[in-house]
Amino acid sequence: MLYALKEEIEQRIYKLKQLMEKSSLNGAFFHYKIDYFYLSGTMQDALLYVPLEEKPVLFVKREISRARRESPLEHIIPIRSIKEIIGHIKPEKRIGLQLDVLPYNDVMRFREIIGNNIEIADCSPLTKELRKYKSPFEIGIMEKAAAIAKKVYSHVAHILKEGMSEIEVGGLLEAYAKKHGHEGLLRVRSLNYEAYSWHILSGRTGSIVSQSDSPMGGLGLSPAFPVGASFKKIKRNEPILVDFGICYHGYQADQTRMYAIGSMPELYTEAYKACREIQYMVLDKALEGMISKDLFTYSIELAERLGYGDFYLGYRPHKVRFLGHGIGIELAEFPFIAATHDYPIEEGMVFAIEPKMVFPKQGACGIENTVLMEKGTYRILTDIDEDIVIL
Amino acid sequence: MLYALKEEIEQRIYKLKQLMEKSSLNGAFFHYKIDYFYLSGTMQDALLYVPLEEKPVLFVKREISRARRESPLEHIIPIRSIKEIIGHIKPEKRIGLQLDVLPYNDVMRFREIIGNNIEIADCSPLTKELRKYKSPFEIGIMEKAAAIAKKVYSHVAHILKEGMSEIEVGGLLEAYAKKHGHEGLLRVRSLNYEAYSWHILSGRTGSIVSQSDSPMGGLGLSPAFPVGASFKKIKRNEPILVDFGICYHGYQADQTRMYAIGSMPELYTEAYKACREIQYMVLDKALEGMISKDLFTYSIELAERLGYGDFYLGYRPHKVRFLGHGIGIELAEFPFIAATHDYPIEEGMVFAIEPKMVFPKQGACGIENTVLMEKGTYRILTDIDEDIVIL
Repeated sequence: MLYALKEEIEQRIYKLKQLMEKSSLNGAFFHYKIDYFYLSGTMQDALLYVPLEEKPVLFVKREISRARRESPLEHIIPIRSIKEIIGHIKPEKRIGLQLDVLPYNDVMRFREIIGNNIEIADCSPLTKELRKYKSPFEIGIMEKAAAIAKKVYSHVAHILKEGMSEIEVGGLLEAYAKKHGHEGLLRVRSLNYEAYSWHILSGRTGSIVSQSDSPMGGLGLSPAFPVGASFKKIKRNEPILVDFGICYHGYQADQTRMYAIGSMPELYTEAYKACREIQYMVLDKALEGMISKDLFTYSIELAERLGYGDFYLGYRPHKVRFLGHGIGIELAEFPFIAATHDYPIEEGMVFAIEPKMVFPKQGACGIENTVLMEKGTYRILTDIDEDIVIL
Repeated sequence: MLYALKEEIEQRIYKLKQLMEKSSLNGAFFHYKIDYFYLSGTMQDALLYVPLEEKPVLFVKREISRARRESPLEHIIPIRSIKEIIGHIKPEKRIGLQLDVLPYNDVMRFREIIGNNIEIADCSPLTKELRKYKSPFEIGIMEKAAAIAKKVYSHVAHILKEGMSEIEVGGLLEAYAKKHGHEGLLRVRSLNYEAYSWHILSGRTGSIVSQSDSPMGGLGLSPAFPVGASFKKIKRNEPILVDFGICYHGYQADQTRMYAIGSMPELYTEAYKACREIQYMVLDKALEGMISKDLFTYSIELAERLGYGDFYLGYRPHKVRFLGHGIGIELAEFPFIAATHDYPIEEGMVFAIEPKMVFPKQGACGIENTVLMEKGTYRILTDIDEDIVIL
């Protein structure tokens, strides 16, 4: 097991406090485990309190000995009920709560505990901002996630056979990935988000739009799980898209490659070539300092110039409005390469870039890589051969 | 694909309106997909509005044609932004929102859209109450989930071998289950809940407490996924607990059986016998009309009488306070067999009952079944041989 280093956690708390000061917060509570994991190193059932002027306190409901082993924080206190925190916190004027994820009822109950006269503000933007840049410690873990992905993709050829269903192929790949350390989920900050950590879409299912905000959706297994792999049998000579995300020690790597059994129809061979071209041309422009929304527009212009305007990132009216999403302990974090984001893609940022083409009632293809911006260059962490694999 | 019948959905809406009237609600919005799936039949990205005096309206963001195919509701309207609902709803005095799950910020934004002068109340208790009783349609689906579980358990013997890791065994079983229709998740109404739909715990990992409120926790794969199966290798002559939940068309079946390679140590053979005895004695008392919290206390008395007081439902201070949980489209719904619930277990209710014993630093064993209360009797839906399997 890899535990967060003391210096790493101290650095994050230090930077958080700088942002808290800017936001005039005297303290901030982190109820959501993604963020208290980031700030403490543990995902045990806990609540993290960071007072501006003092050391953070982690209140742990279950299980205290594991939390103490996993977190380098000094003040880790066992509690049975949330009310017990009162003896340990000072009354503050203005505090942060994670209002973007914490349910309304929970906020109301928590305010009664800490005092209704305290002003509250949303502190989630602070951790989102911090997490925009990855530390060498984090990049090290993401490299390991990418290495697991590489193993998984080289295993596809051992599993994928004509006549298997999409869910069967995905299930076996998932078992293989888990055996090698994949934690099985990709975390997304959204009440109703649900999907497997992977998509296996073949032929026409690649063109099926689902509830999820992504270029491809898939048919899913039932109206109660209407996204991703289905019982459709995989055939010869159709595009098979393998978008298989990995999570290792909480950190994700996201990537997509294309397969076919027999041969790949020319439509997809050509479109995939365009996807690769768009990927590299956008990455070059990102290096030159072009800001996010302009990168997005530039990619659309490229797709149009290459003759794929109608299919790029989905077909109308189902086109999605992003080409890339930051990735780390969440699947959709800063930076985004999207129509409404206006910042440059800077050193230390990690994001997945995924130019994809969807042909209505036919199928889909595309590429995806997890990319780290370094000083004056970029590095594709998901170092997996990009050629179409024909089985 | 199995779609919800029109009469089924109409019946649910009819009963919901009765509860709305009792709660003085003029209308209710369902943002959380578990509940709008229950009331509409679709899990597409949508928002359901149920006015007390008129027919329900389903607003669909993505994807409208699938929502129309899946839901028998009459009024299904495509929207791009939530603001578009305004033209379609009448101003009401007091409306329900799902305040137990909807994030604080979302509630605030939504109030601005519908008007800040409208009184709001939590409408989640209404669907929770409705979902306490299952219809024949729902029971039919749960029987299918249980049939998949039966297949999975009979497949364990083909997979489980000495020297495999827990995660390897679980991953392969999961792949097999998905191939046969398991949707891969068990839904729980909680911000921070995360676990696989299954536990494979062997020997000492069965005694490891985790962040989750269950008798057993497991080691997990890392501090970022500290629950369930681990990389621990499975050995001969130790208890192997297989708690493998299934989800089919949204409906779950939950069950646990015990395995060993070589032989099962007597400690667990005997403790497992006690678990089975407790299960059946509690079910008999439930039939006699004993209320939930008394069933729970009765089970503790039984465990003590059988000499397992220190190990039943965990060891101190980590004992859990429930023996059973209602099950349906969520893993933890009404009815609970728990210390704080005071109602009888009635006809039409479905719940998982799980007497389990945990021996500190040694291991765990237990049984679990999904049970339907029928008129004057009960029926174990998870009809899987209960004997310990020795491989």
